[in-house]
Order: sequence, then structure tokens, then C-alpha cells
Amino acid sequence: MLTMDQRVHFITLSAADLDAARAFYRGGLGWTPLLDVPGEIIFFQVAPGLVLGLYDTAHFVADMHGTPADGKLGGLTLSHNVATRAEVDAVVQQAVDAGGTLIKSPQRADFGGYHGHVADPNGVVWEICHNPGWRVDESGQVHLGPVE
Amino acid sequence: MLTMDQRVHFITLSAADLDAARAFYRGGLGWTPLLDVPGEIIFFQVAPGLVLGLYDTAHFVADMHGTPADGKLGGLTLSHNVATRAEVDAVVQQAVDAGGTLIKSPQRADFGGYHGHVADPNGVVWEICHNPGWRVDESGQVHLGPVE
Repeated sequence: MLTMDQRVHFITLSAADLDAARAFYRGGLGWTPLLDVPGEIIFFQVAPGLVLGLYDTAHFVADMHGTPADGKLGGLTLSHNVATRAEVDAVVQQAVDAGGTLIKSPQRADFGGYHGHVADPNGVVWEICHNPGWRVDESGQVHLGPVE
Repeated sequence: MLTMDQRVHFITLSAADLDAARAFYRGGLGWTPLLDVPGEIIFFQVAPGLVLGLYDTAHFVADMHGTPADGKLGGLTLSHNVATRAEVDAVVQQAVDAGGTLIKSPQRADFGGYHGHVADPNGVVWEICHNPGWRVDESGQVHLGPVE
């Protein structure tokens, strides 16, 4: 049986002031971004295979368009990546069966992949995602590229 | 110069209903905890070297005792572990110098280690922590033990 293994791949945080976040992490702490899209999102790798994303709040909320989720979102998404769209469907279903609340039905994502969102019983939002532009090499380094 | 390297070691989330969290992650998803302390906290390893903690809200808030932080906390803490107490002091200072807001001055932690908390410009709370009971082995497996 397909199960959702114990793995977080992305931590995404709502950032009301993305420029301030950039100044803090890049300027102040000297961190190197994996990808920096001004006005939208900044990604930093923060462990083998793990990415921290600071996501402009307007985009963060818009990404939940057409769902019950809105500004009341906690501002946090934990992402769990899987290999196929079918696995997204199956893992979202498993999480719902486990007692989670469906937030966004599995669907094409704006970035070109495919994802669905489920909240755990305390409102923690998990994105179950198939992202063809993402891979982790043997050293644990994350590579983010365009989705074909 | 000592710098805060790009690393998250713990993701800690406030859980208003810890029993529901246990039922979801352990019962529903079949995950194996690293440590489960009923009424207080459940830890799951979710990547090499990375721990997700579901922390009872009352304990989560109490852990910020004596600080400006209260129920308005975002319910999320990202932890960055360092090797010594002196490094905690230095990294907290670096984060403040980078534009962060001091939430909890470096001090002895209830669990026996030593920690301080700084919020980034968007209110994301980082715990800078020396935890003698924590280690990651060569395979990326986290070990949590009592602090001497």
C-alpha cells in the first residue's frame, strides 16, 4: 500500500515583507539563495534535501485560490514531494482518511507541477506535490529548475 | 567570524490538540515517533538531521515565558543548533545585528540545554540552541537523549 513516508521537503512561510526577508537572510546572515524571484519568493536550502521558502503573502494566499483557505491560513506550508500525479492523488486521499481536512483538491499548480493540500487536525497545512523541476542529488543538494 | 550557517534542525509547531495530532500522524499515517511525551510533545524525524515537533500549545507558549511573546506567536519555531553556549550568544547577536528582533535572551532551557529566540523581519521565530542531548549520526539519523 502506498503510504506517506516521514519526509518534509519544503518549509514555506508567508512573508508580508519579502524585501525585509531578503535583507535579513541574504544581507544580514549572508545566506545564498537557491532561487530568488523578487516580489514573489526566495528559496534557501537549509538541510540535505530541505528547502526553506519565504513566499510573498499575496502570492501565498493566491496559491490557495478557489479553496476555503484564505488569510486565516497559518502562513506555513510543509511540503511532501512524490514522484507522480497519481501519488499526489493517493497520498492526499490517505491524509484525508487519516483525519485530515482537504484544503485544495489535487490540481495543476501555477508553477507547472501538480499538487493538493490537506490540513492536519491542528490546522498545519501539508502540500502533497509532484514537481518535475525539483530533484535532490546524492549529496543532498537540491536542484530547482523550470518545469517542462 | 562566526556565522549562522544555512541550517534548520527542528521545525516546532504549536498543537492545540496533541492527542488529535498523535492519532493523525501515528495512527493515520503510520509514522514512527522519535520521542512521544503525552501531554507535551511528539517528535518525528522528517529528513536527514531534521525533526518535526508537535508541541502542546500551553507548553509552547510557556516556553516563551518572561518575553514579549505570547499567544500572538505564529505557532512556529525553526531551530538552529550550535555546539556551545558561547555560540548561542554569538549567533543570537548576529541575527539581531542582521535586523532580527530579540524574543528571548539566551538562557538555560527547561529541557536542560541553552537557547535564545530571535524573530526575523516577518515574525518567523528562530531558536538558536545548544542541546547536549541531541546528535545526528553519519546516516543523518537524529538521536534525542536526556541532557546530563
